[in-house]
Amino acid sequence: MAFNKTFLLHSRPSAEAPAGPHNFRLVEEPIPEPAEGEILVRHRWLSLDPYMRGRMNDAKSYAQPQKLGAPMIGGTVGEVVASKLEGFSPGDLVLGMGGWRLYSLASRATVRKLDPRALPEEAWLGPAGMPGVTAWVGLNTIVKPKAGETVVVTAATGAVGTVAGQLAKRMGARVVGVAGGSEKCRYATETLGFDACVDHRAGDFAQQFKAATPDGVDGVFENVGGLPLELSLARANPFGRIAICGLVASGYDGTPAAVTNFAAVLAMRLLVKGFIVGDDMSLWPKAYADLVPLIASGELKWARSMAQGLEAAPEAFFDMLKGKNFGKQLVKLV
Amino acid sequence: MAFNKTFLLHSRPSAEAPAGPHNFRLVEEPIPEPAEGEILVRHRWLSLDPYMRGRMNDAKSYAQPQKLGAPMIGGTVGEVVASKLEGFSPGDLVLGMGGWRLYSLASRATVRKLDPRALPEEAWLGPAGMPGVTAWVGLNTIVKPKAGETVVVTAATGAVGTVAGQLAKRMGARVVGVAGGSEKCRYATETLGFDACVDHRAGDFAQQFKAATPDGVDGVFENVGGLPLELSLARANPFGRIAICGLVASGYDGTPAAVTNFAAVLAMRLLVKGFIVGDDMSLWPKAYADLVPLIASGELKWARSMAQGLEAAPEAFFDMLKGKNFGKQLVKLV
Repeated sequence: MAFNKTFLLHSRPSAEAPAGPHNFRLVEEPIPEPAEGEILVRHRWLSLDPYMRGRMNDAKSYAQPQKLGAPMIGGTVGEVVASKLEGFSPGDLVLGMGGWRLYSLASRATVRKLDPRALPEEAWLGPAGMPGVTAWVGLNTIVKPKAGETVVVTAATGAVGTVAGQLAKRMGARVVGVAGGSEKCRYATETLGFDACVDHRAGDFAQQFKAATPDGVDGVFENVGGLPLELSLARANPFGRIAICGLVASGYDGTPAAVTNFAAVLAMRLLVKGFIVGDDMSLWPKAYADLVPLIASGELKWARSMAQGLEAAPEAFFDMLKGKNFGKQLVKLV
Repeated sequence: MAFNKTFLLHSRPSAEAPAGPHNFRLVEEPIPEPAEGEILVRHRWLSLDPYMRGRMNDAKSYAQPQKLGAPMIGGTVGEVVASKLEGFSPGDLVLGMGGWRLYSLASRATVRKLDPRALPEEAWLGPAGMPGVTAWVGLNTIVKPKAGETVVVTAATGAVGTVAGQLAKRMGARVVGVAGGSEKCRYATETLGFDACVDHRAGDFAQQFKAATPDGVDGVFENVGGLPLELSLARANPFGRIAICGLVASGYDGTPAAVTNFAAVLAMRLLVKGFIVGDDMSLWPKAYADLVPLIASGELKWARSMAQGLEAAPEAFFDMLKGKNFGKQLVKLV
């Protein structure tokens, strides 16, 4: 008899014991049977995303904290293996929020059937999924780049940053990426087509940032926080727009991410807006309509980092938070 | 022969010599004669406003720094004493940017004739002037309070805060002021009609702030920065709006005003927007249309602090920056 495997959130990070794989527990249970109106999905891909780190804390945030003892949430692409839901048959490819596990039950409200010929199946968790739509929403509703403006994208080679930078470029902006390491920066400029990319690990990062933004900064797609955000504020032009999509570099582990150059918000009359992609679901179809053809045609490039097997998920997750990934971080489950 | 008196900006503040009256120099010159197309205005009122402090620095900001050796800028209400400009006659009351001086020359582009019967003449420098329009713009374009929401107004009894809080109240919000001292707080609740006012000098300010915002904070009209802003961020509800109008408490003297609770911008998807009232002049007529009748009818309360004589301007200015004023800070020149 085959068993299901699931990672539960077992404990919360604390000042004494920072977040790590010890916060999760792997449990095995019998594979469940679908009830009437349900399907059983065998996951093929699990998405690992920075927002999951926030869910581990018991803090006031945009989402309810993950309950202790409950399966870690996560986006999944999987194959229907049993169906008691009209319109779904074994073999169908579906997108859902199956979580950090091998199998899950789903209903019509919680899955979307995918066209397996449209895109590589894992793309629905990356550029054609939540990260890609996040990039689209932040750019189109907050940053709104105009031709000739300078847009900074941090975590430039991450799942969101790759798409955000390429979309800004298509809108006519000069795009400056910030990434960790020369290999990522080379990828940003040579493959993704960014105009410049600055390595935040370089000793002269601040000087390089300044040199890469000779006309100042008009828009920021901020995934990181910390020093890159400070530099964007210091270089901001009047009426700049800063989309706060993530503050990965700071804050999750209890250390408040103070912003030193906040006075620029007044001096330059900046717009600073935090957002998450789920705030307005009405935007998703419009984002898909833009993104899917660009991904299918290869015009929009993307990269993935792949861990193999569910057991590899915790380590891959924390490596991603440290910036060790390259593009979309996935776990291949089959 | 009568002489004109003018305060020039003589030196800039520095870390070694913080801003003070020593930065100004009073000079006397002959009263100028109007050329063709000009009027000579004898100032009756000079407005003192926090933005002037920013102009003293030689820093990248929304305005060009004040030039050394040039007259300090400032809004004035005065009386035409000589005219070579059609449509203006001696005795006319005019609003302009005459600066820290007794007399100035003006042209059609730089003055507006006032109806002396509509309002007390100094109101055109306060609730019916730049501070009042500032309040109107921040509330109507950024904070946009909805009925039942909680709106925090800092520097609550200042020239801008008094108007911002009363307008928010008229829009149906629960208004919580922050002011320095129990007398100001009493004025905010008893005269201005705020629902609550918290004294930021109180030892238990943070606890009082929390108690005064039992349903969290939906909107902020921020004139001060520092601890009150941190508390608003900590209490912010999802999709809160924060208008950054001033950061008087912090930053002007070179000490960066770090914002510790910045992560709330993401967690609560806040909108933070810096603005100055001159960014969109098309809003002024709409603001006047709302404000002037409310001031004329007495529905909108306001207060003024008045210094007597031009020589009193520097001390009154720095006292205002320390919060010693009550309502609109003016210098009566005649």
